Amino acid sequence: MHVMVIGAAGMIGRKLVERLAEEPVSLGREIARLTLVDVVEPPAPPVFSTISTPLSVDLSDEGSAERLVSSRPDVIFHLAAIVSGEAEADFDKGYRVNLDGTRALFEAIRREGQRERYVPRVLFASSIAVFGQPFPEKIDDAFFTTPLTSYGTQKAICELLLADYTRRGFFDGIGIRLPTICIRPGKPNKAASGFFSNILREPLSGQEAVLPVEENVRHWFASPRSAVGFFIHAARMDTSIIGPRRNLTMPGLSALVGEEIEALGRIAGQKAVSLIRREPDPVIREIVSGWATDFDARRARELGFTAESNFDEIIRIHIEDELGGRI
Amino acid sequence: MHVMVIGAAGMIGRKLVERLAEEPVSLGREIARLTLVDVVEPPAPPVFSTISTPLSVDLSDEGSAERLVSSRPDVIFHLAAIVSGEAEADFDKGYRVNLDGTRALFEAIRREGQRERYVPRVLFASSIAVFGQPFPEKIDDAFFTTPLTSYGTQKAICELLLADYTRRGFFDGIGIRLPTICIRPGKPNKAASGFFSNILREPLSGQEAVLPVEENVRHWFASPRSAVGFFIHAARMDTSIIGPRRNLTMPGLSALVGEEIEALGRIAGQKAVSLIRREPDPVIREIVSGWATDFDARRARELGFTAESNFDEIIRIHIEDELGGRI
Repeated sequence: MHVMVIGAAGMIGRKLVERLAEEPVSLGREIARLTLVDVVEPPAPPVFSTISTPLSVDLSDEGSAERLVSSRPDVIFHLAAIVSGEAEADFDKGYRVNLDGTRALFEAIRREGQRERYVPRVLFASSIAVFGQPFPEKIDDAFFTTPLTSYGTQKAICELLLADYTRRGFFDGIGIRLPTICIRPGKPNKAASGFFSNILREPLSGQEAVLPVEENVRHWFASPRSAVGFFIHAARMDTSIIGPRRNLTMPGLSALVGEEIEALGRIAGQKAVSLIRREPDPVIREIVSGWATDFDARRARELGFTAESNFDEIIRIHIEDELGGRI
Repeated sequence: MHVMVIGAAGMIGRKLVERLAEEPVSLGREIARLTLVDVVEPPAPPVFSTISTPLSVDLSDEGSAERLVSSRPDVIFHLAAIVSGEAEADFDKGYRVNLDGTRALFEAIRREGQRERYVPRVLFASSIAVFGQPFPEKIDDAFFTTPLTSYGTQKAICELLLADYTRRGFFDGIGIRLPTICIRPGKPNKAASGFFSNILREPLSGQEAVLPVEENVRHWFASPRSAVGFFIHAARMDTSIIGPRRNLTMPGLSALVGEEIEALGRIAGQKAVSLIRREPDPVIREIVSGWATDFDARRARELGFTAESNFDEIIRIHIEDELGGRI
């Protein structure tokens, strides 16, 4: 089986490739070829050194999608995107990368299939940013997509394209609406959502972290391990049971910032909790207040997608996967 | 005020221009200039002969949108599209005309505004084809768009673009999701939905018509007069009260084919009814069974959009507008 990961240098892309390296038959068949694509050349795990091809390619460049697809991968994970803040700041770039790049990929697959039958599995990273305020208390699977960012608009448009290309038989696609990933590994960043991870990750390593909102802020989470699991499940599942509604809100955990902190205390003690410094930031508070807080992700759960059910699990996964099992 | 109608040779386009001719201040200000655009040169009513410019332009041709927008119309009615059947039969043409053409228009407006402030009102003809089975009994304003045709997909994507371009201040847009227009004037055509109009229009003129489905088929209707009214209301309304959810399911009448026939009997007698020939067509029955039957169009009604509440009204409007008031 030939697997292609577009956006392989990103956080989820790297973790997905690591998981494939750890469990080489996790997609159901042996991986004979692995193509890793990103705008910077992505890393490949040693176990894949003989079968992997890292490529530095911008999907939105003329002809890039056709070149990638001409190698006829069986499974394509499409994780590449510019993030919400950048798509809002640079309108042209956001539409070029997030919409036109994705559409070019879909079109290249369709045209490849016109030459000779070709119907790959396509897994597309979408986002709960396709939804916009006001929300019901829990957002169900039939709630409409009225994004309030250009990023969310671009994701919602690609979801529609994915469903139509799938319905017409050009590929076999699933759109994966990811929760906010927590605990995000790495350094604190400037993303408005960064603090959800910072207030756990930093204290777990003995570092201070800033909490810019109140403890009663609710949000929607899944671990990086769950995110990778969503894509692997989507890549190997029986898609005939999905029907034409191919974009799925993934399961997640709806939790308060206060519950994050309580779980931190249970697992790492009050000393860790005391490393959280409260610095209310009205700008971040305002941004976060526009985000969805809870979903009834029934369809995805019924289709076998799973995520964490409490923050203790999310923290333990971080300790296992990022801290070698010890704090 | 400079008004542009794109798709001015189509049924709604022609009726819209006729209405503007009858009520020259229906948009709130006097029309000083009228640009009528379609792939074939559209007709202009005599009253507008000195101020109207008919143009034969395909919006999806390179540079067309820029040329149209460079005249900086204050109000743009965008009604141009290829129909559902054609968009399904010709994938490339459907996306080129219905998606790329519309996006080119929106982009041209944005770029014109980068040269010098320009925020026109844009009224976009969308469709209930943005929805796909299975449906709740009544589709409310928060139901998701999961189209089951490429046409519906293209309309849903353009709705998302319209909302984002409006949110960013590039224009002031409203997407108008039209019910099935009934009674459609003209000759019977091959559209699967044609019989809804045929079984009234033809008997009203003493002609036979074929009914290919059972009388218990329910569907969602508005008259051509209401459709024009939606666009005129949208062009002159205060948009500040709409908020960012700019795509509106228009009000309509949910009715059975049997109710159409009863209304025909009341208005034109049993002789007219006897001109309906029942010829069940399983193919048409199957297509129609995938269509939405009822909506709770609360938001549009609250925003002042109105439609008919029974089929007697719909038939009387046809008699007044198409048959000179007599049958």
